[in-house]
Amino acid sequence: MSDLSERRVEAPARAALRAEAARRDAADPLAPVRELFAHVDGEVYLDGNSLGALPKAVPERLASVVAHEWGRLRIRSWTESGWWQAPERVGDRIARITGAEPGSTVVSDSTSVNVFKALVGGVRLAGPERDEILVDAETFPTDGYIAASAARMTDRRLVPVPAAEIASAAGPRTALALVNHVDYRSGELRDLPGTTAAVHAAGALAVWDLCHSAGALPVGLAEHGVDLAVGCTYKYLNGGPGSPAYLYVAPRHQERFDSPLPGWNGHRDPFAMESGYAPAEGAARGRVGTPEILSLLALEAALDVWDADGVDLAAVRAKSLELTDFFLRCVESVLPAGACEVLTPRRHERRGSQIALRCPPGTDARTVAEALAVRGTVIDHRPPDVLRFGFTPLYTSFADAERAAADLAAVVGPAIGGEDGAEADGPQVEAV
Amino acid sequence: MSDLSERRVEAPARAALRAEAARRDAADPLAPVRELFAHVDGEVYLDGNSLGALPKAVPERLASVVAHEWGRLRIRSWTESGWWQAPERVGDRIARITGAEPGSTVVSDSTSVNVFKALVGGVRLAGPERDEILVDAETFPTDGYIAASAARMTDRRLVPVPAAEIASAAGPRTALALVNHVDYRSGELRDLPGTTAAVHAAGALAVWDLCHSAGALPVGLAEHGVDLAVGCTYKYLNGGPGSPAYLYVAPRHQERFDSPLPGWNGHRDPFAMESGYAPAEGAARGRVGTPEILSLLALEAALDVWDADGVDLAAVRAKSLELTDFFLRCVESVLPAGACEVLTPRRHERRGSQIALRCPPGTDARTVAEALAVRGTVIDHRPPDVLRFGFTPLYTSFADAERAAADLAAVVGPAIGGEDGAEADGPQVEAV
Repeated sequence: MSDLSERRVEAPARAALRAEAARRDAADPLAPVRELFAHVDGEVYLDGNSLGALPKAVPERLASVVAHEWGRLRIRSWTESGWWQAPERVGDRIARITGAEPGSTVVSDSTSVNVFKALVGGVRLAGPERDEILVDAETFPTDGYIAASAARMTDRRLVPVPAAEIASAAGPRTALALVNHVDYRSGELRDLPGTTAAVHAAGALAVWDLCHSAGALPVGLAEHGVDLAVGCTYKYLNGGPGSPAYLYVAPRHQERFDSPLPGWNGHRDPFAMESGYAPAEGAARGRVGTPEILSLLALEAALDVWDADGVDLAAVRAKSLELTDFFLRCVESVLPAGACEVLTPRRHERRGSQIALRCPPGTDARTVAEALAVRGTVIDHRPPDVLRFGFTPLYTSFADAERAAADLAAVVGPAIGGEDGAEADGPQVEAV
Repeated sequence: MSDLSERRVEAPARAALRAEAARRDAADPLAPVRELFAHVDGEVYLDGNSLGALPKAVPERLASVVAHEWGRLRIRSWTESGWWQAPERVGDRIARITGAEPGSTVVSDSTSVNVFKALVGGVRLAGPERDEILVDAETFPTDGYIAASAARMTDRRLVPVPAAEIASAAGPRTALALVNHVDYRSGELRDLPGTTAAVHAAGALAVWDLCHSAGALPVGLAEHGVDLAVGCTYKYLNGGPGSPAYLYVAPRHQERFDSPLPGWNGHRDPFAMESGYAPAEGAARGRVGTPEILSLLALEAALDVWDADGVDLAAVRAKSLELTDFFLRCVESVLPAGACEVLTPRRHERRGSQIALRCPPGTDARTVAEALAVRGTVIDHRPPDVLRFGFTPLYTSFADAERAAADLAAVVGPAIGGEDGAEADGPQVEAV
């Protein structure tokens, strides 16, 4: 598939890229933010799109929550330490990152549970005459599984449609469309404004899954009139393993939002212990049961990095694109053309903050990712052949990007017909 | 209501009770376990039925999870630190406390979310011809709210029935009955074996909420043939604020259990990223989304107290009954008869691990509880007039019980017509 005469890696090219990375890092206005995160010596961590790195503020804050708020204040912390209000308070901090209105976002439960709330609540908002749910056909699987359950339980028809065709597929029978803002596999950024407008033109609601976009690029929920949205907080928001997800309900829909999970935390007066359910006003209506406070407050501490000097979404987006552009150049410089097909769109307006590469024929993604990890470059992979390189602008450096490309060349070198890649030491993958 | 001539507190009586408390504590085989928990000097904590005290093992374990497993191993911890298996692993530890089979219990989500899974899943197991859901009429409200939603979404009729009448109310149209094992208000222990048997005789399923019983007394889920159960872990299991809840599905039902929240964590092969849902075998089928690992692993560390020498459910139950008996004697010794109506059954077989007292007329529960807290006795209350004294056998001492009764007498003394209670200092409550 590739011309072997082109494949030999040029050491001078790598030296130039290294120097360029150093220059770019020195000029990076977000470079100081990297120091707010814990790093592992010698490791390039490009899996922040699966689990964000640890913000240094978290351990001390969480230790205080455990020892003082739980250990000493105990039950009083629900009021005195602000535990009770945490889902809305942290929700408002996330709202600033997703461009949502204050009071529109609540943090609780997992993404899957919030997809269920959003879809059933959305179907009820859309009304009984609209009997179809459109779902992004390439969706992260859990969204599809939950959408199927929501459709079954609300007697709607589930219609999988490629994301690019959602806009034209929405019609008079469409209740809502569930779309991923960034495709988890390819890293493609979908057209949120255009799709939302088209879905609205059909009289339906737009529900967005922001798992792979929030924290990596501007979303503009309010600006673009999104109806409902969900997202996780453990990727680009660095909230920690399984940190709670969030639900966005546009203010115009809140009063009629009718959750399928009307737990006592979403009641208007939870401690009145009334036998009848009366939903709370505002974002709290999306709450269900008692929030997992330790995970929630770790997330809250993790969000402090967004208050650091110079951190804003424009800077984050600019660096994200610069990083991914640079990484693509590095890959193309150290690997022969076509050795790893680039699955992520080149156009900035269609690119999220990850680069997905297809493994060379004869290799598989798991083996390549494991070999990269042994060399110190940690990435994610999706079966059978997709390598995901995630770039978190708050802590990924240009040096990281250059090193990852060099490691990739070293690992897949043998599989694409050469002797070795940029560096001969460490694991390599041979074609099977 | 009470004879004023009887109300004066006898100091000698209190001295005798104090001495008796000291003797009982010295003879208590569970007394050493108290040292495994963090305590606050001078505070009597009888609110473990809302939020259990902090086990001392938690802070160090959680610090290691954050700094090492998240901070250094990062994404590898899903496999190398056993994060992925934690919901089932911790579930098996809870199963030992609830008398459930290994592989029957999974920890995830809140109690409310698990009630939804259990009820919808239970209705589906019961089959389409059974169109009624019976629910404990005095249930903790969230169970009732969620039951109403489950009934609405499965087109069943919700029938609230007093817990004692569930057995006779179950009939050929009953799909399932949802009952609280211990009433959160009165502390009454319901007849789990008898009610379960009667519900089964009607061909229906028994679903138990164990929030106020698990960890305080033997439950015997397997022994009594319970079909489905849920419970929280932050009360008598001391898992921390909002620690995740659990779902029990009897092994005989697992293969047909059809969750309304089929998230990717409950898939047979989650990382295959298949577009169609195929449920996992066993307890994992009850999982939904990514578990909140920090809260979950804090709970796991908290459960270590159950491995301490001498800790078993028989010892826990024996001490619980001895504590509550003793507390009632103390209350009756330092307060005039009838000053505070005892709402908790006297019969051991109908008593959980809390004592609920009704405030004297003219006082309200919040004010009394706040005055008690100022004196250092922390309890819970439910509007308008119920005081809840929770006894956690693993860390509550007999001295705590005696002191709480004395503080109560001091606080409500003026309201019941006397000059003061056992001690004249500190806040008191007057009748309004």
